[in-house]
Amino acid sequence: MAGVIYLLNGPNLNLLGQREPEIYGSTTLAEVEARCQAAAERHGFSLVARQTNREYEIIDWLQEARTEAAGIVINPAAFSYHSVPILDAMKMCPCPIVEVHISNIHRREEWRARTLLSQAATGTISGLGVAGYALAIDYLVGALA
Amino acid sequence: MAGVIYLLNGPNLNLLGQREPEIYGSTTLAEVEARCQAAAERHGFSLVARQTNREYEIIDWLQEARTEAAGIVINPAAFSYHSVPILDAMKMCPCPIVEVHISNIHRREEWRARTLLSQAATGTISGLGVAGYALAIDYLVGALA
Amino acid sequence: MAGVIYLLNGPNLNLLGQREPEIYGSTTLAEVEARCQAAAERHGFSLVARQTNREYEIIDWLQEARTEAAGIVINPAAFSYHSVPILDAMKMCPCPIVEVHISNIHRREEWRARTLLSQAATGTISGLGVAGYALAIDYLVGALA
Amino acid sequence: MAGVIYLLNGPNLNLLGQREPEIYGSTTLAEVEARCQAAAERHGFSLVARQTNREYEIIDWLQEARTEAAGIVINPAAFSYHSVPILDAMKMCPCPIVEVHISNIHRREEWRARTLLSQAATGTISGLGVAGYALAIDYLVGALA
Amino acid sequence: MAGVIYLLNGPNLNLLGQREPEIYGSTTLAEVEARCQAAAERHGFSLVARQTNREYEIIDWLQEARTEAAGIVINPAAFSYHSVPILDAMKMCPCPIVEVHISNIHRREEWRARTLLSQAATGTISGLGVAGYALAIDYLVGALA
Amino acid sequence: MAGVIYLLNGPNLNLLGQREPEIYGSTTLAEVEARCQAAAERHGFSLVARQTNREYEIIDWLQEARTEAAGIVINPAAFSYHSVPILDAMKMCPCPIVEVHISNIHRREEWRARTLLSQAATGTISGLGVAGYALAIDYLVGALA
Amino acid sequence: MAGVIYLLNGPNLNLLGQREPEIYGSTTLAEVEARCQAAAERHGFSLVARQTNREYEIIDWLQEARTEAAGIVINPAAFSYHSVPILDAMKMCPCPIVEVHISNIHRREEWRARTLLSQAATGTISGLGVAGYALAIDYLVGALA
Amino acid sequence: MAGVIYLLNGPNLNLLGQREPEIYGSTTLAEVEARCQAAAERHGFSLVARQTNREYEIIDWLQEARTEAAGIVINPAAFSYHSVPILDAMKMCPCPIVEVHISNIHRREEWRARTLLSQAATGTISGLGVAGYALAIDYLVGALA
Amino acid sequence: MAGVIYLLNGPNLNLLGQREPEIYGSTTLAEVEARCQAAAERHGFSLVARQTNREYEIIDWLQEARTEAAGIVINPAAFSYHSVPILDAMKMCPCPIVEVHISNIHRREEWRARTLLSQAATGTISGLGVAGYALAIDYLVGALA
Amino acid sequence: MAGVIYLLNGPNLNLLGQREPEIYGSTTLAEVEARCQAAAERHGFSLVARQTNREYEIIDWLQEARTEAAGIVINPAAFSYHSVPILDAMKMCPCPIVEVHISNIHRREEWRARTLLSQAATGTISGLGVAGYALAIDYLVGALA
Amino acid sequence: MAGVIYLLNGPNLNLLGQREPEIYGSTTLAEVEARCQAAAERHGFSLVARQTNREYEIIDWLQEARTEAAGIVINPAAFSYHSVPILDAMKMCPCPIVEVHISNIHRREEWRARTLLSQAATGTISGLGVAGYALAIDYLVGALA
Amino acid sequence: MAGVIYLLNGPNLNLLGQREPEIYGSTTLAEVEARCQAAAERHGFSLVARQTNREYEIIDWLQEARTEAAGIVINPAAFSYHSVPILDAMKMCPCPIVEVHISNIHRREEWRARTLLSQAATGTISGLGVAGYALAIDYLVGALA
Repeated sequence: MAGVIYLLNGPNLNLLGQREPEIYGSTTLAEVEARCQAAAERHGFSLVARQTNREYEIIDWLQEARTEAAGIVINPAAFSYHSVPILDAMKMCPCPIVEVHISNIHRREEWRARTLLSQAATGTISGLGVAGYALAIDYLVGALA
Repeated sequence: MAGVIYLLNGPNLNLLGQREPEIYGSTTLAEVEARCQAAAERHGFSLVARQTNREYEIIDWLQEARTEAAGIVINPAAFSYHSVPILDAMKMCPCPIVEVHISNIHRREEWRARTLLSQAATGTISGLGVAGYALAIDYLVGALA
Repeated sequence: MAGVIYLLNGPNLNLLGQREPEIYGSTTLAEVEARCQAAAERHGFSLVARQTNREYEIIDWLQEARTEAAGIVINPAAFSYHSVPILDAMKMCPCPIVEVHISNIHRREEWRARTLLSQAATGTISGLGVAGYALAIDYLVGALA
Repeated sequence: MAGVIYLLNGPNLNLLGQREPEIYGSTTLAEVEARCQAAAERHGFSLVARQTNREYEIIDWLQEARTEAAGIVINPAAFSYHSVPILDAMKMCPCPIVEVHISNIHRREEWRARTLLSQAATGTISGLGVAGYALAIDYLVGALA
Repeated sequence: MAGVIYLLNGPNLNLLGQREPEIYGSTTLAEVEARCQAAAERHGFSLVARQTNREYEIIDWLQEARTEAAGIVINPAAFSYHSVPILDAMKMCPCPIVEVHISNIHRREEWRARTLLSQAATGTISGLGVAGYALAIDYLVGALA
Repeated sequence: MAGVIYLLNGPNLNLLGQREPEIYGSTTLAEVEARCQAAAERHGFSLVARQTNREYEIIDWLQEARTEAAGIVINPAAFSYHSVPILDAMKMCPCPIVEVHISNIHRREEWRARTLLSQAATGTISGLGVAGYALAIDYLVGALA
Repeated sequence: MAGVIYLLNGPNLNLLGQREPEIYGSTTLAEVEARCQAAAERHGFSLVARQTNREYEIIDWLQEARTEAAGIVINPAAFSYHSVPILDAMKMCPCPIVEVHISNIHRREEWRARTLLSQAATGTISGLGVAGYALAIDYLVGALA
Repeated sequence: MAGVIYLLNGPNLNLLGQREPEIYGSTTLAEVEARCQAAAERHGFSLVARQTNREYEIIDWLQEARTEAAGIVINPAAFSYHSVPILDAMKMCPCPIVEVHISNIHRREEWRARTLLSQAATGTISGLGVAGYALAIDYLVGALA
Repeated sequence: MAGVIYLLNGPNLNLLGQREPEIYGSTTLAEVEARCQAAAERHGFSLVARQTNREYEIIDWLQEARTEAAGIVINPAAFSYHSVPILDAMKMCPCPIVEVHISNIHRREEWRARTLLSQAATGTISGLGVAGYALAIDYLVGALA
Repeated sequence: MAGVIYLLNGPNLNLLGQREPEIYGSTTLAEVEARCQAAAERHGFSLVARQTNREYEIIDWLQEARTEAAGIVINPAAFSYHSVPILDAMKMCPCPIVEVHISNIHRREEWRARTLLSQAATGTISGLGVAGYALAIDYLVGALA
Repeated sequence: MAGVIYLLNGPNLNLLGQREPEIYGSTTLAEVEARCQAAAERHGFSLVARQTNREYEIIDWLQEARTEAAGIVINPAAFSYHSVPILDAMKMCPCPIVEVHISNIHRREEWRARTLLSQAATGTISGLGVAGYALAIDYLVGALA
Repeated sequence: MAGVIYLLNGPNLNLLGQREPEIYGSTTLAEVEARCQAAAERHGFSLVARQTNREYEIIDWLQEARTEAAGIVINPAAFSYHSVPILDAMKMCPCPIVEVHISNIHRREEWRARTLLSQAATGTISGLGVAGYALAIDYLVGALA
């Protein structure tokens, strides 16, 4: 096994596919996770996929990923803007982290255009819909090769 | 032919590979363009790849792409921050546009963290190095399929 | 049954009646809930009344109310100012939402004067003490009639 | 008689029902005033209802209400944002004052989200349509009981 | 008769020609109104010309123009910067409105450079002296033709 | 007669002596005007003393004072902060103007600390209670001597 | 010949009539220039009409107009917001300059509401569609008469 | 027993000693708690020491400490910047509260320099490493003596 | 003796009469002090008049005046804007303090319009030239009577 | 001797015990210095204790301490907010520096909440009254051991 | 030959000597270049002197200078404020760069006081007229010796 | 003698050569003064060279230079940012003043990038190390010739 990739999704993403489909599309989170798992396994990685509405679970999972993960894909969703604890937890992780946003955060409310967490990520993909998750996996398997 | 993808690179990117390699890496622009061309052609698209230090050439090329391109990948580099003419030209293009930044613009000077042009792009990929270009091509060929 | 109204109270409101009574009054939360239940039932609605210090429970309850509630009364208390996850969850609810603040938030610290969540509410009642809850119920039963 | 309640409406509200009905509804001011009068009289209060486009009349009426009114309901409309003379006149009134806004001022232009006058009011009701007036009367008769 | 054009002038413009002639020129308001009347009548329009130092009269006149006018030329003068009631009254008018400023508001105090009312006008002419009034009439008769 | 001094008082000052006496003192406006008249006449000046809650009356009176007054004492009260029409009217007056504030505007709300109108006044006296009026008269009779 | 009027148009205006016609209308730039030429010649002026996407050409043309032009009409379009070189070149021109904007810049993005260049223009016409060009010519031939 | 001192530590402090030791040092949280316990007991106080990544646990513990604690030492870590619920819970505690930060928050990111919670604390110790905890205990036992 | 009035002048005021006489007039500081002394003695007060370019001397003198003075007239000049030590020293004085500025600070650089020290003064006189000193003495002898 | 600790106190602290005792307590500076001396000597350090209202003396003493001191305790008082010379002098000192504030600077005026000098200190103790001095000495003797 | 010094001048400087001579003086650019050449050659350096109104030429020349120049003197003129491409190109140059401004940019419009490009220069000379160019050459020949 | 040049150095510059040599270099102030003296005398000027940590001495020396100096070179160091008294004293000097900063103030803390005093100087030289002093002398002897 080449290693483990963590796929972490934040609050309200459990409703992906139902919630404001004109913004977020109609693909469900289960489908997204399945696609990412397939993509990861194709390159010899396993995938740990989790979603939560709880900030502390993101923190706990990042502390776990800190020693367990080869790479992290995270869509912090609404936690992106003010969560300093998640920022600090991300900073403790030595592996590459790709932050994904489904919608183009530059076309919504002014304050969504800049996420606090981006400075602790390796890079960011936003606005490319759920396709952004697969691109993030692709990046990681390439970078970790 | 499935269509044409434009790959446009802005000022100082002609020195890619030589300029601040600790930030931008050592791959040259020619190598980037070759990889993108291969990726596009693999999916039946042709690639038009251009670089310039001149703002007006970006404007002219976007006006051209407005009727010729099926998709656009653009790294506006230093034009990202204040160029309203490029913003207006991007807004006139009906096809999807992916904005690419090689470095993580959230880890540099404060003012680099937000690009004016992102609101006229479909989405943005930043901080993933030159790999970001290929991911952008992948996104476009998927979205245009 | 005309439908269900959710009454959600946020952090530290479990101490209502004991906490800073010169600001929040001496009525307890149990008394507030009882009054609201009576008012709701008088018009044929049932009331689901909950309080929590946990942001994620508010999110979970709003996701539940999204399909179960005919109307929502919410006093997000200290979550009003920065909680984007609650904002996003409120936006997903199709029913009317009345935001209640017991104290006049315009007479306290500058930053309390504007709550982030108000833009996702139908309307707001603030400064009218615990009487504001009953007025919110009255509004909902009238609007839902 | 339990006392007099003043109902004061500010500029352009004489056109209520005709002006932007998608925002303000189709109820006329006369209907609003009639409903409030009925509600006040039901609890033994009389109602003084006035509307004006003139800032100084609001000031004069508040100076009058200062000694004559048991409670005040005021929708300062467009005077809410900058009128320091009305703020000062409100501050001189010893009785409770409820500020009413028909539309949700948090969903319109940024600058409408915060009214200068709220700090001189007992509390505020906004976004609940013309129903807000009746709720304000209800609050006052309850508080004055 | 092709219709009625309202020409409304705000505070201190009754002194046009006497007040700071190095900024506002030496033409009087009566002369301006006469020229505008001649221009309007030349194209079959009648002109209603009024000036006031009273904010409420501007509001009343706009409410009147709302149903009576085919077009409006307004120089709100010092009311341009903070008058939300006039803004709201302008927004209620279905006909085209041209806002005129005699001096170039971009060359004076910083805060004069942006008028609140411009967002409720069809367009703005500033800095072209009293000639701006005639150009506004010309625009209206052309647009209304 | 050495000339006429205008003493103009703005909104809510008709209640001087009754309104918040801990801030504004218990002297009435009539007493203030009487003292100022005595002081003016002692030096051969006559006094025109007026108060209004109406912004347009201040404008009209300043237009009148523009040709009639040898000096002006003005307490614009709540009009001090946003009234551009009064600012413009003051600027048209060739005579000295002393702006008076009874309370120390630097010890109250932040936004009261700076009055817009001060830049059109010769000078300002604030915080010295109603004694400030007499000092202003003294200044004018000295400066006009 | 009474003199030469320069009509300068900035970036993306070559697509006038095709670009976002709901904002900019369907008249082409050639038609605009033809109308302006006719208007100028009617009063004995000749017209030099040019368009460019290049900032330096605007600078060069203004340096030329500095000694050759009797008046200038300029629509700097997207150069209006940040181009200090054009500002400096405009300041060097002794003749009157009218800045034209086709759309009402006060109804679009916040930052479009104020153009840097307005302080170097004699005056500005905005929001009156392509009719604004003709009004600008009318102003110049009147002012230069 | 002289009373109970609560020692509360916020998110990511469970990794103290491992996390960025160049900033936070190599002492573990267990060692810190043991030292504090010894210090407290030396003066007849008992110590309740807890750590959590969950905001609501801090709130719950403060509500508990509100009636149980003689003094509180709290390092809110990343919760220091935006947590209004913790602020409100601290304000409800009648006993002295010392806020401790291990690193000098004035030498890191700009936004870390000011913690929201400091206004609800008795005082703050920052930048003195883990020694700050012991100093806080020393202060409390002295102040409570 | 009715008591002692301190007259304190700050930096560069030793050059009064020579320095920028178009702003500060041609009266010297010695003349100002002589006039103030005469005015004070006329009402039975003695005057202590001092000037310094040294911030610490202002502090020392205010500490002295704290127990010795019946009233203080201070022109802090350039110390008005940032000197927190003088602010703190003024706050310790129980007697009335009048702050004097010779020029109208609202007509100069933006940042001169608001002095930090005004909040520690009883009141302020500005823009009335050197006459402001005498008015300040008059106020004090009146208030202390 | 283990070394010398400098204890430096800034402006108005010579009045400690007399000045606003409800904020600063009733202990005098002499008592504070005596306690610190005892604490220092208990651990084999000598204490140099000085107070001044003069900014330059703080600078001179820091230049001296730069080569003479093993550690510094400084309460810059009102110099904390703007004194860049003291900031620069602190930066030149190689030894640890503890900044002490007697009152909680986060509970007073907004601008007192952040001191410029904190970034040049090792750490800060604020709000713990005069006890903060002794804690600072304790820290230093511990850190220097 | 000791090496080559590049002297680059930005937009509108081709009119030096004609343009606003009260600000920029009457020396022409040719004279400036001649003096600099003489100074450079006196110390064994050759001079490459160029001027342009085109941003891209500055970029191209800096890319050329990056490998060819021993030192650079640049007056970016109006490009100083927003040109990120020039900033990036300057950052790529390993040799010393002196930024020259003829006028004192601190005495003009507020926004001219700070140039974006200064952070990429070794140092800056401003306000010393055309003499600043020669001083820059002097510095370079000294530093390169 | 052609006249006297004053060379004034501000706080902490007495330690030049010892203080942070990686920023300020290893040349001492005595060496700098000696070089400047030699340069001045070479052109027939004498030099008065002084350094102080005291703001008032800078003020006193500038008042002296006001009548005695033909030119001034001043490095206000840390006084550059807030010292209004020095600003006012510089404004009183009729002779040319060159402000020198050894380090590039645009590459340090944000707030060091703009000095308050620059608007009272003829011009500024920054970032060129101690060589800046000699260039300033060169400028003065040239300008005074």
